[in-house]
Amino acid sequence: MGLLEGEAVLDAGFEGDMVAFIEAGAPVGETRPVEGARLLAPLRPRSMRDFLAFEGHLKNAFRRLGRPIPEEWYEVPAFYRGMPDTVIGPEETIPYPYYTGRLDFELELAAVIGRRGKDILREEAEGYIFGYTIWNDLSARDVQARELPIGMGPAKAKDWDGSNVLGPCIVTADELDAGDLAMRVRVNGEEWGEDSSKNMHHEFADMISYASRAQTLYPGEVFGSGTAEGGAGIETDRYLNEGDVVELEIEGIGVLRNTVGKKGE
Amino acid sequence: MGLLEGEAVLDAGFEGDMVAFIEAGAPVGETRPVEGARLLAPLRPRSMRDFLAFEGHLKNAFRRLGRPIPEEWYEVPAFYRGMPDTVIGPEETIPYPYYTGRLDFELELAAVIGRRGKDILREEAEGYIFGYTIWNDLSARDVQARELPIGMGPAKAKDWDGSNVLGPCIVTADELDAGDLAMRVRVNGEEWGEDSSKNMHHEFADMISYASRAQTLYPGEVFGSGTAEGGAGIETDRYLNEGDVVELEIEGIGVLRNTVGKKGE
Repeated sequence: MGLLEGEAVLDAGFEGDMVAFIEAGAPVGETRPVEGARLLAPLRPRSMRDFLAFEGHLKNAFRRLGRPIPEEWYEVPAFYRGMPDTVIGPEETIPYPYYTGRLDFELELAAVIGRRGKDILREEAEGYIFGYTIWNDLSARDVQARELPIGMGPAKAKDWDGSNVLGPCIVTADELDAGDLAMRVRVNGEEWGEDSSKNMHHEFADMISYASRAQTLYPGEVFGSGTAEGGAGIETDRYLNEGDVVELEIEGIGVLRNTVGKKGE
Repeated sequence: MGLLEGEAVLDAGFEGDMVAFIEAGAPVGETRPVEGARLLAPLRPRSMRDFLAFEGHLKNAFRRLGRPIPEEWYEVPAFYRGMPDTVIGPEETIPYPYYTGRLDFELELAAVIGRRGKDILREEAEGYIFGYTIWNDLSARDVQARELPIGMGPAKAKDWDGSNVLGPCIVTADELDAGDLAMRVRVNGEEWGEDSSKNMHHEFADMISYASRAQTLYPGEVFGSGTAEGGAGIETDRYLNEGDVVELEIEGIGVLRNTVGKKGE
């Protein structure tokens, strides 16, 4: 457990992982600088829910399918669940699974739940957020197209070792107003898309309120915003190749950078 | 950690939970009988994947929607992921969430992964199964109908505290041939449906092979068969009410019995 201060990493003086740290109320002990520290994934989430909040992304994605946005989307902050065991961190190689020919990234803002709650009111929901990070939700688009008609949501289209990248750090909620953050993606240094968190049709407060209906939320659960407009290659039919460098940047959090590995390795 | 021998429960002499026990290779220590033991959920799964293996159930469900079974279903063992924190066990009250008017059960056979593996061949996949249990995958059908068009699979239709019941025990794979097990459901003592595991179009070996493509499976992960034919009220448009007693029976495993609680409590 480390604290990031500028470029320096301080040992937080806590025995346990990030989820235990959040659960304990983030008790910083005696800190000491750590030389040559490398940032790992900021947490192994207790669970992962991924929503679909940006209308701009959805418009572009559905236009390609020749269909309008389903009217239910405007009312219901639906989600699918991710696999915590697949999470990797900043600068790690993105594994390129042998079974896809359309590897894609997704630029998402993620909120980390800070305390336990159930039937959380929308107006009180922000108080349950410990902090924010960036989520690169890698996707195999050809597999997604085959799985979609079955009606269970994405399965192997979203799951393989390393298919979810979190990082480069968590910025605590007291340090970040998430209402209007610039979000950008660059591939090999070229800007592919730009959006702002202000364009989220469903806000994190909506998602937390919806997910907590009759259900306890726990510290360390992660809520993803869904892809920002321009935040995935599918919108323009461009996909990732071996060696591509993907940089997801969100104002106030930083840059989450990873390189795509060799296919099938 | 207990061993079930007939009606008797023996303390297995293991420090840790079921997932740790499986991971350790199921090392039974010095056993001793436990008087008045009550069976809990046999494990808090490391993860939950729920498939859709029975053509009979699917035919009945899609007929109600006025649509044919999607052709992709025959080829792809798709799944959605469940929430381990929602699991309860035998004889526990099924919470009836305030937000649904169509509470339904699902009769499923579940396999528990016994050892780590990746890119598991279909022919070797059965060797990764530690054992089998029964899964009652409770569902809010009105919510499912609203969430389905969004394309992310079921969200709050499947998630609330207590929405997944596992039990009454795990029968280890060496003690059970899962190829042709009678499966039955009774509501308030009346038989509502009957099927056999031999009618699974996708077998557990197919699911394990598919899920493990480029991805590590871990001990304690749970794979659900999906609903057997007749194994859910939606097939005949009958739903659960307060006080209903639901019994799911699978040959060789036992009966998983629960009573529906008061709505909204």
